[in-house]
Amino acid sequence: MTRPRIYLFGDSITEASYVGGGWGAALTYHFARTADVVLRGYSGYNTRWALKVVERVFPDDGVSPIAVTVFFGANDACLPDRCSAFQHVPIAEYKENLQAIVSFFKKRWPATQVLLLTPPPIDDEVRLQYPYIENPANLPERTNQHAGLYARAAVEVAEETGVPVIDFWTIMQQTPDWKTYLSDGLHLSPSGNTVVFDQVIKKLGEAGLSLDALPVDLPLIAEIDTKDPLKAFEFLQK
Amino acid sequence: MTRPRIYLFGDSITEASYVGGGWGAALTYHFARTADVVLRGYSGYNTRWALKVVERVFPDDGVSPIAVTVFFGANDACLPDRCSAFQHVPIAEYKENLQAIVSFFKKRWPATQVLLLTPPPIDDEVRLQYPYIENPANLPERTNQHAGLYARAAVEVAEETGVPVIDFWTIMQQTPDWKTYLSDGLHLSPSGNTVVFDQVIKKLGEAGLSLDALPVDLPLIAEIDTKDPLKAFEFLQK
Repeated sequence: MTRPRIYLFGDSITEASYVGGGWGAALTYHFARTADVVLRGYSGYNTRWALKVVERVFPDDGVSPIAVTVFFGANDACLPDRCSAFQHVPIAEYKENLQAIVSFFKKRWPATQVLLLTPPPIDDEVRLQYPYIENPANLPERTNQHAGLYARAAVEVAEETGVPVIDFWTIMQQTPDWKTYLSDGLHLSPSGNTVVFDQVIKKLGEAGLSLDALPVDLPLIAEIDTKDPLKAFEFLQK
Repeated sequence: MTRPRIYLFGDSITEASYVGGGWGAALTYHFARTADVVLRGYSGYNTRWALKVVERVFPDDGVSPIAVTVFFGANDACLPDRCSAFQHVPIAEYKENLQAIVSFFKKRWPATQVLLLTPPPIDDEVRLQYPYIENPANLPERTNQHAGLYARAAVEVAEETGVPVIDFWTIMQQTPDWKTYLSDGLHLSPSGNTVVFDQVIKKLGEAGLSLDALPVDLPLIAEIDTKDPLKAFEFLQK
């Protein structure tokens, strides 16, 4: 019995989603008995690099996943004249790259649910406290305003390609204390991880990929008759 | 490129290893760029049920994992005259079942590293505070002394079958405050999860399955030249 698969494709916000109670780990537990959640997170990657590797990351092994999340933009949105400029990708190219990634998935796996996730907001001031690279100018390498342009672009790509999108930049800022969703002004805090988990579950559910809809692989303990436990496993002999 | 796979096969201590900062989630993050850690945890299951489902859980898909952890015994060790008796498996049968599971893996995947994990210790008193089933007699359904017999049996199976084992029952009790490794007298607390993660990483490393030994799938951000990032991806054209 091959389990249905859900791929998580993205940058460090995806790769680190298995740290603490991250959204990736929470998805794995949520789908523990129904689907395999498979991590394909690449810290630091922008869409330019993601597009270069996507064919290699997802070889044509004949097995289509039921869903794939595409979560890039936080690195593309690095400002072109600041310390992390080497990760910057201009917005027009970001859109093209994202479109190409979506097209790749649609062509390889026509029945797979592709789900776009926009970059989360940025806490400009806090970014200065967590430099990941030398920052002699002491200016934030990412800003919330600039990340917002990339989030908007990702929403446009979703509309143009007809795939669902979760606009985390907008959704998170609807909460007054949205900055608590971030641990270092860029990556997710525990509460930010919960927002992402909840939204992804909701969106997958809208696409018919919920615990109610997916079959459980083997009897749950609650379904096992305490007076005759082996009865629950008789179907395996058939 | 198909990633090497590490399966985690076990009961709720495996299934819940993706909750919070659990050992399974920590393994997934540890191997994020080298191997897929695949959850096959079945809450409530003992070795009798595990043996019934093992063929179904691990179909012959032609892909051998690099390792599989086998972590059963906590349910087998339920006392036969207490409220969770339906999960109890006598020690002699537990040993036979565990041997059969190891044999199944050795036959299906001759090159795969099988790793046995013994049940952790039990905090008898705390078990009364977290009943998972009606317990009118108000007696612990599992005891530390009884779990120890199953841990000993698992170690014997490891010796007999020639596979490595981690004896958590013994290892954890070498620490005076070992009861803090448990959240409900049975399942792992955050510190207990850390012990399991550390020990599994160590044992996999001894078998040659470490980050040093396994190839990274694609360039790490630290290896990417900030002055010429695309150079790191040139190898993909070759």
